[in-house]
Amino acid sequence: MQKSLLHTAFGVLALSLATAASAQVKPEDQIKFRQAGYSFMSWNMGKIKANLEGEYNAKQVEAAANAIAAIAGSGMGALYGPGTEKDIGNLKTRVKPEFFQQMQNVGKLATDFNAAAANLAKVAASGDKAAVQKAFGATGETCKACHDKYRME
Amino acid sequence: MQKSLLHTAFGVLALSLATAASAQVKPEDQIKFRQAGYSFMSWNMGKIKANLEGEYNAKQVEAAANAIAAIAGSGMGALYGPGTEKDIGNLKTRVKPEFFQQMQNVGKLATDFNAAAANLAKVAASGDKAAVQKAFGATGETCKACHDKYRME
Repeated sequence: MQKSLLHTAFGVLALSLATAASAQVKPEDQIKFRQAGYSFMSWNMGKIKANLEGEYNAKQVEAAANAIAAIAGSGMGALYGPGTEKDIGNLKTRVKPEFFQQMQNVGKLATDFNAAAANLAKVAASGDKAAVQKAFGATGETCKACHDKYRME
Repeated sequence: MQKSLLHTAFGVLALSLATAASAQVKPEDQIKFRQAGYSFMSWNMGKIKANLEGEYNAKQVEAAANAIAAIAGSGMGALYGPGTEKDIGNLKTRVKPEFFQQMQNVGKLATDFNAAAANLAKVAASGDKAAVQKAFGATGETCKACHDKYRME
């Protein structure tokens, strides 16, 4: 577990550090894209929740979990570059300033989130509703951990 | 190929028809979520493009392709429900009205897109840059096919 978390952490760092390809994304677009990612993930979390509380459609849950895991693992760290700490024009950011001073802690929370989302996708593929319930809850906790610390109300 | 396309088409239909879980998403949220999906995919298409034109980071390309494929396959058809044909408040939609009258054609374009994105992810995992170039181009064509027909300027 430790080894794979470390690998994931390096993976997250590696993707974030691969700025060559991402460096041309303007700050306002970085804010826009990260908000798009969180928004789309929230739709998919909502779908899984509805499936857990109502009629369980395993394929729908699997697709939703895959979307969440893939978005989580797509190197969103690159969307928190210089200039994205403040609102830009109509684009409002809810990220607290201290986020940018605590990148090590942010990296840890991101790693936790990534691992939970990856596990959710893996478990969703099995069709095991009870296991999905647990993994879904665990994933939500990782979302909350970052939101509680770094997202303004 | 025919069999898997048919399977994908049914898959897309099945996800779209699984409205039980999605029916509670308000029209304004459906518009918001679909725009979020396209936006996040465009970031990832941009990353792949930058990798193909510059220094090729296979892991970054793989993660980007996975995000695109997973978003494409997450049942976005459910985000084009009744009431989402027009702007709602500040939420502007660029979908042309005829989209909602031509669902069979839309389904075909969506299936093409899904297949191309899935192939892009599969090829990206191989690390074969030339193959990714082809698959990336093919995916872009499927985006364009729908945009040309159903997206306002």
